[in-house]
Amino acid sequence: MIVIESAAAMQQQALAWRAAGEEVGLVPTMGAIHAGHQSLVSRAKRENQRVVVSVFVNPKQFGPHEDLASYPRSFERDRARLEQLGVDVLFHPQVDQIYPPSFRTQVDPGPWAERLEGRSRPGHFAGVLTVVLKLFEVTQPKRAYFGQKDIQQLLLVRQMVRDFMLPVRVVGCPTVREPDGLAMSSRNAYLTAEQRAAAPALHQALTSASEAYRSGVTHPEQLERQVRERLGQVPDLAVDYAQVFSEDTLERPQQVRPGDVLAIAVKLGSTRLIDNVVFGADRL
Amino acid sequence: MIVIESAAAMQQQALAWRAAGEEVGLVPTMGAIHAGHQSLVSRAKRENQRVVVSVFVNPKQFGPHEDLASYPRSFERDRARLEQLGVDVLFHPQVDQIYPPSFRTQVDPGPWAERLEGRSRPGHFAGVLTVVLKLFEVTQPKRAYFGQKDIQQLLLVRQMVRDFMLPVRVVGCPTVREPDGLAMSSRNAYLTAEQRAAAPALHQALTSASEAYRSGVTHPEQLERQVRERLGQVPDLAVDYAQVFSEDTLERPQQVRPGDVLAIAVKLGSTRLIDNVVFGADRL
Repeated sequence: MIVIESAAAMQQQALAWRAAGEEVGLVPTMGAIHAGHQSLVSRAKRENQRVVVSVFVNPKQFGPHEDLASYPRSFERDRARLEQLGVDVLFHPQVDQIYPPSFRTQVDPGPWAERLEGRSRPGHFAGVLTVVLKLFEVTQPKRAYFGQKDIQQLLLVRQMVRDFMLPVRVVGCPTVREPDGLAMSSRNAYLTAEQRAAAPALHQALTSASEAYRSGVTHPEQLERQVRERLGQVPDLAVDYAQVFSEDTLERPQQVRPGDVLAIAVKLGSTRLIDNVVFGADRL
Repeated sequence: MIVIESAAAMQQQALAWRAAGEEVGLVPTMGAIHAGHQSLVSRAKRENQRVVVSVFVNPKQFGPHEDLASYPRSFERDRARLEQLGVDVLFHPQVDQIYPPSFRTQVDPGPWAERLEGRSRPGHFAGVLTVVLKLFEVTQPKRAYFGQKDIQQLLLVRQMVRDFMLPVRVVGCPTVREPDGLAMSSRNAYLTAEQRAAAPALHQALTSASEAYRSGVTHPEQLERQVRERLGQVPDLAVDYAQVFSEDTLERPQQVRPGDVLAIAVKLGSTRLIDNVVFGADRL
């Protein structure tokens, strides 16, 4: 595995692979590599001749009062893990490689970016799509891998790829969980032992909503209420949102249908956690 | 020459050329092909194995009170001219090929888009950059050709290419003029005989500013005033702006230096015309 820090050198390598007919799979990450990332890398390895993993904590997707400064960084450990997984290039740019002082152009994600996560995190998805577009241009992937846990991000990246006709296939991959059900996330590292013990409540609440749906409950509000009530029992936890939406509209449907999503965001202490369930699907 | 109307088919052709190592030159136009466009195509022919000309009147770059409906359309004549020039593909999509009903993602050009043309035409450059990015993705050009007449457009496209690291070389080409100096523009067709007779005043005003600069006048405001006074003598003409700016900042410099620009926009009757001069350069 080679580590490339220069965006120009990364693009040169990617264009050379492309000219040689070699397909690149890209796994964009903010580092703090965990089993969720590892599953994306494994899939990318199976489906592409070359695999690039980017490790870049993207300042543009953090709000002014968010955890940019404290976001977990563990580059040497990440490097060792990615090398073990057989990654070809670890792309690890400094901030000024991606955003030089003259940087001005951004992606405007449109109205979907103002809902759910976007309502709580203004500007977040503009930052996400801007860096994803740039990573696509720099690494020229045939396929790019994103986790289902960040489902709105996945849907917005898909929307951008469709709208701009980027020649990239966006592959959504199932959420990887701890044995007790907590979705893998770099932010889990922030949790105290007590919070960590309480955190599986997110998955439990979603699972019970999924079971209620299977047993015939199709009113979105009823399922949302059930999730809120379950989460309300957890000390030190505040629900940001718990909302059912359709993947096609990002709006709450009249009645839940297979493929609809229930997404939640909570603050457990000062740590923001998100998770979701797709109704009528096995991927939980 | 083949005519392609489907964006997917165009992209497939472009990716096939790319895989075969053939370089594409793109000339994006809104049709009503004139000698200015023809000079871009000739240059593209010289520098690339394949030349694609797009003809697409982009609704997103027109404001609600602008001339989208009346913009000159002359597809059969354009097709014949482009065929004569040896173009490989004329890409001629309908609006729903570029903007299907689900279209939401746009390019946000940042603060440069709010100056000069952008001040008079809010949203114009977001529309321009969005369609240019999409045309780049669909036609996969190695080089793309833009006229110097639309200088702010040229600078904003260059900014986008730099910011997103698009693997495209943006080639700016000199303004082509009528024998009396009027810059070629599809909108010249709107002019009445009297307006057409008066229209060379734009170029004359710019030329005299350029001469004043050569003779030692370096105060931006003085040069702007001189241009405004000259244009003020033309009946039925209203100056929108006449402004000196530096290409690096789009701001008025303290003193004019070689490479700085004086750009003007006027309304001659109901027709909006723009032109510019680069100080200390031969391209006028």
